[in-house]
Amino acid sequence: MTKTLIRNAVIMTMNAKGEIIQGDVLVENNRIASVGGSVPSVQADTVIDANGKVLLPGFVQTHIHLCQTLFRGRADDLELIDWLRQRIWPLEAAHNADSVYYSAMLGIGELLRSGTTTILDMETVHHTESAFQAIQESGIRAISGKVMMDHGTEVPAPLQEKTAKSLEDSVQLLEKWNGAADGRIQYAFCPRFVVSCTEELLTGVRDLSEQYNVRVHTHASENQDEIAIVESERGLRNVIYLDRIGLARPNLILAHSIWLDEEERRIIRERGVKVTHCPGSNLKLASGVAQVPELLRDGVPVGIGADGAPCNNNLDMFQEMRLTAFMQKVKHGPTVMDARTVLRMATMGGAEVLGMEKEIGSVEVGKLADLQLLDLEDFHVYPSFDADWYSRVVYAATRGDVDTVMVDGRIVMRGRMMTTIDKSYVLREADRTLRNLLSRL
Amino acid sequence: MTKTLIRNAVIMTMNAKGEIIQGDVLVENNRIASVGGSVPSVQADTVIDANGKVLLPGFVQTHIHLCQTLFRGRADDLELIDWLRQRIWPLEAAHNADSVYYSAMLGIGELLRSGTTTILDMETVHHTESAFQAIQESGIRAISGKVMMDHGTEVPAPLQEKTAKSLEDSVQLLEKWNGAADGRIQYAFCPRFVVSCTEELLTGVRDLSEQYNVRVHTHASENQDEIAIVESERGLRNVIYLDRIGLARPNLILAHSIWLDEEERRIIRERGVKVTHCPGSNLKLASGVAQVPELLRDGVPVGIGADGAPCNNNLDMFQEMRLTAFMQKVKHGPTVMDARTVLRMATMGGAEVLGMEKEIGSVEVGKLADLQLLDLEDFHVYPSFDADWYSRVVYAATRGDVDTVMVDGRIVMRGRMMTTIDKSYVLREADRTLRNLLSRL
Repeated sequence: MTKTLIRNAVIMTMNAKGEIIQGDVLVENNRIASVGGSVPSVQADTVIDANGKVLLPGFVQTHIHLCQTLFRGRADDLELIDWLRQRIWPLEAAHNADSVYYSAMLGIGELLRSGTTTILDMETVHHTESAFQAIQESGIRAISGKVMMDHGTEVPAPLQEKTAKSLEDSVQLLEKWNGAADGRIQYAFCPRFVVSCTEELLTGVRDLSEQYNVRVHTHASENQDEIAIVESERGLRNVIYLDRIGLARPNLILAHSIWLDEEERRIIRERGVKVTHCPGSNLKLASGVAQVPELLRDGVPVGIGADGAPCNNNLDMFQEMRLTAFMQKVKHGPTVMDARTVLRMATMGGAEVLGMEKEIGSVEVGKLADLQLLDLEDFHVYPSFDADWYSRVVYAATRGDVDTVMVDGRIVMRGRMMTTIDKSYVLREADRTLRNLLSRL
Repeated sequence: MTKTLIRNAVIMTMNAKGEIIQGDVLVENNRIASVGGSVPSVQADTVIDANGKVLLPGFVQTHIHLCQTLFRGRADDLELIDWLRQRIWPLEAAHNADSVYYSAMLGIGELLRSGTTTILDMETVHHTESAFQAIQESGIRAISGKVMMDHGTEVPAPLQEKTAKSLEDSVQLLEKWNGAADGRIQYAFCPRFVVSCTEELLTGVRDLSEQYNVRVHTHASENQDEIAIVESERGLRNVIYLDRIGLARPNLILAHSIWLDEEERRIIRERGVKVTHCPGSNLKLASGVAQVPELLRDGVPVGIGADGAPCNNNLDMFQEMRLTAFMQKVKHGPTVMDARTVLRMATMGGAEVLGMEKEIGSVEVGKLADLQLLDLEDFHVYPSFDADWYSRVVYAATRGDVDTVMVDGRIVMRGRMMTTIDKSYVLREADRTLRNLLSRL
């Protein structure tokens, strides 16, 4: 058994009582064995001195597109449908296995380095195998799947799928990757959004997700044009349509869900559907301000996700947390979305969206050891005297303050040095594969 | 003569042509002597290898309160008037010379470390001498002044000034500090806002600022309650009142100016008044979304400022730039406020607000050497191949990417190591002085 001892941290547990305690955390293999108090160093294989540092659960991001990281900065200042048709789809269509792999590695490097330890990811139509390889090698915890799209206009030929083949390819990936790396990797069906899916595909996903007991990850009601297309083609508002065809169930995770009416909010609440808020993406694509306080009041699990690099342009939970608080305040007043509420969304909230609230999202005995240590010895997070820890982490800390990250009991960054990814190599290969991809456009 | 050579950088000049060139920058004493091409190393006392790095003008932040840095995280989730009366004013009233000095040092450390080289600052009523000392020692370029407030309800006794004394104290500071440190330090009159100033004080400031040829720095039309107080007391909307008493002139710099009507926009445009946009503060205090695109279209100089630490909670231009772009897109659509427009606001725009566009804000021969080098060799700012530099800097880079900073020809940070401020010492003293300050409350 491997034992890692993290000594003398300020532990923001994010447990139900909201406890913040000073002390040690012992990790045995991939699980948290003790929290708080003092553990003799002699019991551990590795000892991390966390004196003066803050220990948090790793962040959980519930909407990411690793395959788009290579397109960072190549689709700025556009609205969703233009952004997809003019830029993202042609770029995704030009991907090969090589470029998907390094796009994923680039994104995972950024995510781990800024404290995110679990992601719900959506890949592109092809080469999803390469993304799973990058997930496996890097050590990040991920639920991912190939995107499914068998419908819609202005879709480049390489992204146009036949319904049966889309389902078959998904199942093939699922059978290989669901539960891989000792359960660290899971599969989710990823129909892109109603606009690019036939009803046959969506009901196929419904049945297969039930059969295999896996999640369904899709976009819904991000943009008014998108909703208009759905209404004109299916005759119903987006979420009402998803409910009508039996997809609105507890295993359904909707990204964005900005433009919901009362009836759709009722469906989400009553069917146990989960929602991911993507503040940076929603602002940059000018999609709108989501009904986050209302959804939380309804008791709906809401996580946070940075979405893809080209609509953000970072994958950084610290920035997303600040935005989550800030963008709601202008709408609802300054007391809405306080720091503690937001940090909970970034950890336990994400875990609940994934149905993994018993496994991740807090620092508690028996949970998986997905942890991050922050070094807050810098001007921008001071004073420390009598400080509110939630405020310090949510409103002042940044990605650069993450010192050490552990996923599934394995250290993936220590003292800002990555241990599972060769940064320089990945950066060079990202440039090389992007150059080749652009030449294929 | 001291010569510093920065070799082989990507130089984002921010000059009128928007040139981005690869090459060397030679600094002689405190000015830029050459830009681009290749300069023999033998000519320089200090050589900085900037291969693979990006050289930018230092950021100019046109609204900062250094004296509030010590209060970071102590006034979260409140609206402006409550934020002032319940928290900031009592805290400011408890300041002594010691706490003002370390509050300023803490803020300056954060600002320099994240690439800001010039600030327009507003201090509190007393102990402004200490802030000027910190400015002088740290090496930052600053225009600052004591706050003036001789009116208003719920103002703690130590902050209540007599009109004549407020003017006298200001002039005394001005005569000592305006033009100090070889011109790196300048003085500005800082009447807090109309709510806390008698007309006698404001007209006094008008006359003295003309007599001494210095700027006037105040808040205006940040919040609807503030505007209502001004209207009820002076019978006019805020900016119309400032114009009526003769303050609306080219040396007037208004912070926030969110709630302007057509008439006020006309006054600002026609009188040559300058505006500072404070996106983080405006969101966190739920003040509103400023009319930035409209003001820019009017040809009004608009700079960016982080405001004070307790309403942000950072003093970080990278975060303010992203917010400046993002918060306007939801209002005006995704094509508004592109990356280049925003980077211009953060550099030349700020210089124009200060009337210093011939001295700072761009990398051009003859200008003061206020420079920053970014190291963009990290996941979150990649790929670099065929990248749009404006997008990379505005939408992806962060404070942690600032490698080296120079102000007035002097290196204040090199390879992330501060050279003029002892970081550990300042952090410790910030905690000590805050503890003492809280015991005086």
